[in-house]
Amino acid sequence: MTQIVETDVAIIGAGPAGLFAVFECGMLKMRATLIDTLEAVGGQCSALYPEKPIYDVPGFPSVQAGDLIENLKAQMAPFKPVELLAQRVESLSPEGEGFVLGTSAGNTVKAKAVIIAAGAGAFGPNRPPLERLEEFEATGAVRYMVTRREEFRGKRVVIAGGGDSAVDWALSLKDVAAKVVVVHRRPKFRAAPETAAQLEEAAARGEIELAIPYQLHGLEGEGGQMQAVTLSTLKGEVKRVEADHLLAFFGLSTDLGPIAEWGLGLERSHIAVEPATCETSIKGVYAVGDVATYPGKLKLILQGFSEGAMAAHAIHPRVFPGQELHFEYSTSKGVGG
Amino acid sequence: MTQIVETDVAIIGAGPAGLFAVFECGMLKMRATLIDTLEAVGGQCSALYPEKPIYDVPGFPSVQAGDLIENLKAQMAPFKPVELLAQRVESLSPEGEGFVLGTSAGNTVKAKAVIIAAGAGAFGPNRPPLERLEEFEATGAVRYMVTRREEFRGKRVVIAGGGDSAVDWALSLKDVAAKVVVVHRRPKFRAAPETAAQLEEAAARGEIELAIPYQLHGLEGEGGQMQAVTLSTLKGEVKRVEADHLLAFFGLSTDLGPIAEWGLGLERSHIAVEPATCETSIKGVYAVGDVATYPGKLKLILQGFSEGAMAAHAIHPRVFPGQELHFEYSTSKGVGG
Repeated sequence: MTQIVETDVAIIGAGPAGLFAVFECGMLKMRATLIDTLEAVGGQCSALYPEKPIYDVPGFPSVQAGDLIENLKAQMAPFKPVELLAQRVESLSPEGEGFVLGTSAGNTVKAKAVIIAAGAGAFGPNRPPLERLEEFEATGAVRYMVTRREEFRGKRVVIAGGGDSAVDWALSLKDVAAKVVVVHRRPKFRAAPETAAQLEEAAARGEIELAIPYQLHGLEGEGGQMQAVTLSTLKGEVKRVEADHLLAFFGLSTDLGPIAEWGLGLERSHIAVEPATCETSIKGVYAVGDVATYPGKLKLILQGFSEGAMAAHAIHPRVFPGQELHFEYSTSKGVGG
Repeated sequence: MTQIVETDVAIIGAGPAGLFAVFECGMLKMRATLIDTLEAVGGQCSALYPEKPIYDVPGFPSVQAGDLIENLKAQMAPFKPVELLAQRVESLSPEGEGFVLGTSAGNTVKAKAVIIAAGAGAFGPNRPPLERLEEFEATGAVRYMVTRREEFRGKRVVIAGGGDSAVDWALSLKDVAAKVVVVHRRPKFRAAPETAAQLEEAAARGEIELAIPYQLHGLEGEGGQMQAVTLSTLKGEVKRVEADHLLAFFGLSTDLGPIAEWGLGLERSHIAVEPATCETSIKGVYAVGDVATYPGKLKLILQGFSEGAMAAHAIHPRVFPGQELHFEYSTSKGVGG
């Protein structure tokens, strides 16, 4: 059932920057509607690495990405945003003083302002070109991310890739998996020197098997139940590794999608904004978080939060024209007379 | 014993913005020295309102100011800053490529860059002009803030003032104190309408006594042990209220101190900075948090954090000239190859 949502601020992207933008809008009494291509809020933090510790969010010496999202959800919850999930914003057009957005699920959002918090855009893993891949993806035998390490307890796991993800997960899973084999085309890993050294040491102790220089060749098994992964060298030598799972870490491909067509003055897949307001070249459309850029921009979660606060304050006169903003800062309340 | 400290970055002010600036400098391998007039780190959060809930720090639906400081201390702890507390920075002068700072305790700090995170400056309560006030301040009979509500259990408390602090604490302490009397010169309270109404209702129920329009007249007692507070009207009528404590909430006076003399281009007690770097008019000297201003500046704790990150990144080439910054963002690590 499609719907027409009238809102103050349409927020495209429900990652950490988008969630905190809902909170900041709410603090200024502006209603927000949150739209995301994923089925749940949280963006990459929830979908790709919920158990990953993050060290640079102020006030959290360490916080798992998934827990940060839970906290941000609780923080924005009192402001009850409308959530339109599992749908992409296909169109954005001006209407009167505001905008009309159309989503891939057929919904329409009428908003007085728009905040784009799209991160790197809709994202997906780079998938290896193997026959019958979909069959093994469907059962979870082939995966591109680890959300729960415990699922691999006692399993035989082939990890493909040469970057941080491959190395970090090999080191992590060796303690729970029955066997870990790392497949990489080159002898050198593009991982942090310290963890690459740990991988070599674990291999020397026999805790991890290295298949180098090999690449993925094929998958064996029936009905999505994996029996083995076959590997090959560039010379065509083939090797068979018995396995229950293949974890392929070949990086992400990201896609800003229709946003790229909105005339926003993209700079290498980023949207240029005014630093003090986060307004884009289209008046009334703002961008915050990793998708936004300006001279000196730092791609930190923290900056996405701070930009959400700036955008919300900049949007306020558009939603409440002529109404002066008497904002009581929580940091100054409670002292003095 | 005075000392000479050589450091990468001298950070003036150990409130939340200063503490997080230590962390951000540490993440970029820069050593920091933290200087504050108070005897402990935490600024107003620790000294004035440690139990006050804050609602707008991202990822914390609610956090007490004191707990936020504890978290920030834990977050910066791995970087082991030198802490010079209970001393004021009296002088700042250029020396070679860096700066020399002198403190009121006779210490010298040699730094390659300076971050001023001084908030509203050194701060103190506005004190009422009463005879023998110091005698009662020394024993804690007269106070200007509440750090632990439990200390007032069973006590007779006079609260003076007409703003949020007076009203909020009257409502809070009525549940633990033996008696609460609120003294105010005017019939109307300058507090949030909702809490001012709650005060009237509590007074109507006899839970709080209102002494209006009265002002403070004198203190009775011996050796700092309070027996009563005397009040007077403008017409000279005097009233005696038996009491163990006087809590005076007449606001704060703040003082930037010698910082105002450093030629930093102050705008109404704020330091103007470049928004993208937080650099002041003196190259190598930066300002972050409530003391810093630029067009569109929001006085949120969050902005102080974000400005600390920007200042640290801007300072990096000054501390490590010619060395490119390969900064691995915690948000992008862990995904892809």
